[in-house]
Amino acid sequence: MAAGAPLKRYLLTAGPTPVPERVSLAMAQPMIFHRSEAFAAVFKEALEGLQWVFRTTQPVICISGSGTAGMEAAVTNFHSPGDKVICLRGGRFGERWAELCQAYGLTVVPVDVEWGRPMDVAALKAVLEQTPDARSVFATASESSTGVAHPIREIAALCSGRDTLCIVDAISALGAFDVPQDEWGIDVLVGSSQKALMLPPGLAFVGVSQKGWARARTAKLPRFYLDLARMLKSQEKNESTWTPAVSLIVGLRESIRMMREEGLEAIFARHRQLAEATRRACMGLGCELFATDAPSPAVTSVRVPGGLDGSKLVQRLRGRWGITISGGQEKLKGKIFRVAHMGYFGPFDIITAVSGLEMVLAELGHTFELGAGVQAAQRVLGSVE
Amino acid sequence: MAAGAPLKRYLLTAGPTPVPERVSLAMAQPMIFHRSEAFAAVFKEALEGLQWVFRTTQPVICISGSGTAGMEAAVTNFHSPGDKVICLRGGRFGERWAELCQAYGLTVVPVDVEWGRPMDVAALKAVLEQTPDARSVFATASESSTGVAHPIREIAALCSGRDTLCIVDAISALGAFDVPQDEWGIDVLVGSSQKALMLPPGLAFVGVSQKGWARARTAKLPRFYLDLARMLKSQEKNESTWTPAVSLIVGLRESIRMMREEGLEAIFARHRQLAEATRRACMGLGCELFATDAPSPAVTSVRVPGGLDGSKLVQRLRGRWGITISGGQEKLKGKIFRVAHMGYFGPFDIITAVSGLEMVLAELGHTFELGAGVQAAQRVLGSVE
Repeated sequence: MAAGAPLKRYLLTAGPTPVPERVSLAMAQPMIFHRSEAFAAVFKEALEGLQWVFRTTQPVICISGSGTAGMEAAVTNFHSPGDKVICLRGGRFGERWAELCQAYGLTVVPVDVEWGRPMDVAALKAVLEQTPDARSVFATASESSTGVAHPIREIAALCSGRDTLCIVDAISALGAFDVPQDEWGIDVLVGSSQKALMLPPGLAFVGVSQKGWARARTAKLPRFYLDLARMLKSQEKNESTWTPAVSLIVGLRESIRMMREEGLEAIFARHRQLAEATRRACMGLGCELFATDAPSPAVTSVRVPGGLDGSKLVQRLRGRWGITISGGQEKLKGKIFRVAHMGYFGPFDIITAVSGLEMVLAELGHTFELGAGVQAAQRVLGSVE
Repeated sequence: MAAGAPLKRYLLTAGPTPVPERVSLAMAQPMIFHRSEAFAAVFKEALEGLQWVFRTTQPVICISGSGTAGMEAAVTNFHSPGDKVICLRGGRFGERWAELCQAYGLTVVPVDVEWGRPMDVAALKAVLEQTPDARSVFATASESSTGVAHPIREIAALCSGRDTLCIVDAISALGAFDVPQDEWGIDVLVGSSQKALMLPPGLAFVGVSQKGWARARTAKLPRFYLDLARMLKSQEKNESTWTPAVSLIVGLRESIRMMREEGLEAIFARHRQLAEATRRACMGLGCELFATDAPSPAVTSVRVPGGLDGSKLVQRLRGRWGITISGGQEKLKGKIFRVAHMGYFGPFDIITAVSGLEMVLAELGHTFELGAGVQAAQRVLGSVE
């Protein structure tokens, strides 16, 4: 490109994700008072939409804050000081559960799995049997630091029939693939706005089962801003306890409308196809997948080809081509790159990313046939009507 | 008006407040990655702008959450279980400080003042002398439930030279009138986005003095999402610890630019004039002010004229005329109404509100000369260039 040409930007990070024009325009409408019939109507529709995405008949609480605020609410509302809890750690977000529990004085029993591998259900079963007083199991549905989708259905099943809550961070899963709260028996399910729900960051969502609400009544950890029972009381009147992030909630109503128009099954099928196309493309240009056994439909993690500098790859893709993907975090820094495809994504977002990736890999000296990745992606993308 | 005509809407509540078109458009721009140079540049400018508004050389921490999240951070980051604290209560938001402190196991010594009256500094002085172990004094700069501006300068002065922090909720004050953190010696100053900063709700801000940061190092209350020291470390690199509310921060940069173009002194003068016009107008149409001694430049509280139904007044103004003002809360329900004029407000917002108010008051049977309020407002608004 000629110097000075405007660099068109493409966002393919594991959050925040692109916001549809319809949603941006909805959020740009004049501010409305949060104690009004107009807001109550918006909030009601948005909250019902969350239940539809969570696949639960229980109310889903809407918090103004980052996803981590939702995770904190899942710790403080259901535990008392000294409670013993099991934290599944297979990546950065699994580790966050453990840090959070420790910050609130809980006794953490970790169950670790190698980064990039799905949680070992048999190992969890053994730990649960050795820990009859475990109050909760904390898990991660889509571990976006490694690109792994953990076996939540099986994990939740292990907690049923015991006085152990199954608490799941589904922040980058909800709306990308199915995590049916009621059917799987997940007691506390945490989501947030800036992933497959196609919104800017700033809202967190917490769905709670009846078993969860029962526990909340006896949980003694201190809480105020994140007091879910208090928020539930307000939400029953379509109100928010605290002044809510009004513009984001107006956006949420719009993004839910878009999702309903598409339908959940179609949304999940689209994510599966985009993920498959991305994986095939990366293999097609001679890269190895990082999460081989249980790759997440939300984000694809790929090993940086031997000898190349992964940070340089990510920087070059952004600096020269305007395409933002994510590198590896912590122990994976420089070793993997991650291409997200959750939310407002279509075939040509994948073609764009793969095509840019090819040009940077070629420039960095990786040997492959230029266009091979794009071709592999096209084979997948063109195969289904 | 003919039936079916679109009802133009006017928002004059004590938060959220109207968002300028420039800010809405800035927030509608494509999403950017929060771990990028582009976001770091936006965040740096926004954070420097907050220091300018807070009038402090200390960093101001930016939280994704409601104002109450900022208040909670001001409690949990500076106290240990059982700490004794003094809470000044003269309205709903003063009471919120006490509730928050109690929820976290602090021992609250309340200093109460009648709703509508400014805090009695001598009474606080006496309580402080009887409570040498008070770790903090919690105060409210602009008590929007009563329309009172409390004497923060004097309250802060009483805390200086002692091991007592002065912690101030300035959520509806910052940007409407001067609360100079460093000059007055306020240790913890809390603001939020949806008032005079002209943004949607969803961000809270906490400015902390060196005395405050020293206390934070020994404070033992649990915290994670709202851990200010952790957030400070990230902010020093123009990063956010958690995924921040990106669109609101992009909006914050824009609203700060607008504020810098106008200048703080001019902003404060504008608010003083709008407040004076509103007060004169209400008196002109035969209403009594509620906060007579220390009316806030951010919001004007007015007694509902004898015999009238205050809730009906507020409802009618919204339903028939599209003008949203606030009624009274809790013990003031139905007894007062409140007209806010903080943030993106000009003379004709006041004229509109007063004119609508007159038509509703006339309809409800209040006796006064139609147009008298508007005339009184015009006298004030036209008097200064």
